[in-house]
Amino acid sequence: MSTIERVGVSVEKELLGQFDGLIEKLGYTNRSEAVRDLIRERLSQEELKNPQAQAVAAVLLVYDHHSVHLSGRLLELQHDHDVVASTHVHLDHHNCLEVIIMRGKVKDIEAVAGKMGSLKGVKLGRLNIMSTDM
Amino acid sequence: MSTIERVGVSVEKELLGQFDGLIEKLGYTNRSEAVRDLIRERLSQEELKNPQAQAVAAVLLVYDHHSVHLSGRLLELQHDHDVVASTHVHLDHHNCLEVIIMRGKVKDIEAVAGKMGSLKGVKLGRLNIMSTDM
Amino acid sequence: MSTIERVGVSVEKELLGQFDGLIEKLGYTNRSEAVRDLIRERLSQEELKNPQAQAVAAVLLVYDHHSVHLSGRLLELQHDHDVVASTHVHLDHHNCLEVIIMRGKVKDIEAVAGKMGSLKGVKLGRLNIMSTDM
Amino acid sequence: MSTIERVGVSVEKELLGQFDGLIEKLGYTNRSEAVRDLIRERLSQEELKNPQAQAVAAVLLVYDHHSVHLSGRLLELQHDHDVVASTHVHLDHHNCLEVIIMRGKVKDIEAVAGKMGSLKGVKLGRLNIMSTDM
Repeated sequence: MSTIERVGVSVEKELLGQFDGLIEKLGYTNRSEAVRDLIRERLSQEELKNPQAQAVAAVLLVYDHHSVHLSGRLLELQHDHDVVASTHVHLDHHNCLEVIIMRGKVKDIEAVAGKMGSLKGVKLGRLNIMSTDM
Repeated sequence: MSTIERVGVSVEKELLGQFDGLIEKLGYTNRSEAVRDLIRERLSQEELKNPQAQAVAAVLLVYDHHSVHLSGRLLELQHDHDVVASTHVHLDHHNCLEVIIMRGKVKDIEAVAGKMGSLKGVKLGRLNIMSTDM
Repeated sequence: MSTIERVGVSVEKELLGQFDGLIEKLGYTNRSEAVRDLIRERLSQEELKNPQAQAVAAVLLVYDHHSVHLSGRLLELQHDHDVVASTHVHLDHHNCLEVIIMRGKVKDIEAVAGKMGSLKGVKLGRLNIMSTDM
Repeated sequence: MSTIERVGVSVEKELLGQFDGLIEKLGYTNRSEAVRDLIRERLSQEELKNPQAQAVAAVLLVYDHHSVHLSGRLLELQHDHDVVASTHVHLDHHNCLEVIIMRGKVKDIEAVAGKMGSLKGVKLGRLNIMSTDM
């Protein structure tokens, strides 16, 4: 566990009041925790600019599960790459959601996510990626 | 299954060439499929502006699993809301990733995701939300 | 001018080191300044969710200035709405960039930006909006 | 001027109806124009991943114009880099908005925008960048 340092930060009273209001609404019980989260989020965004950075990601795919061959091709892509786990959710008679958790380099995850999103039958694809190099 | 319509679209030859290059790289085998995906993505973005729209979402949380009480509070939040499933991934000695799949109204999902991200011990939180009202 | 408060924040030594590295690279000479910027950016994002919030914005349009009627229609849209100023930049023989600065409610700015982006001849349109209700 | 090609695209009737509804609301008078805009926007996003791609950008800065030395440093940064033009807007007694139009490589624009945003007195900074390599 990392050593904790106590740092002093100067903030305008009015800005601090607005920030305290927001973090209370979000459920924070502690201002330090909220500031640390801002710092981590900022560092994570910066890291993502590096295609070689280690990251975890979730690919969300909405697809028509009647599409011939789709699930087979999706499975193949998953086995060839840095997939950790996947979860399948039934949405309605035609559509399902697959959430695929990946771990690897930013550039590799982006490439596979692009391929998954372009499979025939996939209606919506979204990638959410977070650097963990911090 | 919806009826298919054939529509004609005029595109500059050069722009079309660049688009064909991109979609081939992404793995599309069919230009119509790629155009449909652009249309769906655009409609999905528009729908998300409506807080009442139905959506599916994944919340990604990176947290320190040594945090006292965290997993209990996270579980409580999950049970009280529109959570469909969640997957837990071990990242390293301190950190784990939890991917929580939700289904519900845009505004409800955003509120719960905010609360999850602000729990003590959660280091990074990210929400990925897709409207399914199309 | 607002009163300044000094607040103490606890941060893991390692995280602090990474943050100091990033802000030095970005050119900050002062850690408080960097933390205040994170806080303001977070509040600004939150405010933007309110369609009634006051905002400033820049609409960027890349368009073909040979398009008949385009500049006339663009000017009309500008005069009917919350436009403060606009700047025109010549890009190449066909294309120019127009940056239109607006001030008003989030929802009004978004509506006008949508209309500008859909004018015939406009090739790319982008909206950048910042809440100033802080 | 580029030759125009007419391409046929198959779209589900229901999806097409929703798209036509959206583009009418946005002010499009022509479906081809709306599809071309989606294609250009997608290509532009892809191009931005290349740090060497040519781009145009607007940096938006909200700052306190009472800040000593700020305007001088901002001007210096502008003169040393790919700045085309800038517009200054008075917001209220303390705050002003500066919109700085830049043209150059993606990576250079991002570096300068980061430096501008970190200047003492700058409260909010935002970068909007569009590739023009299409």
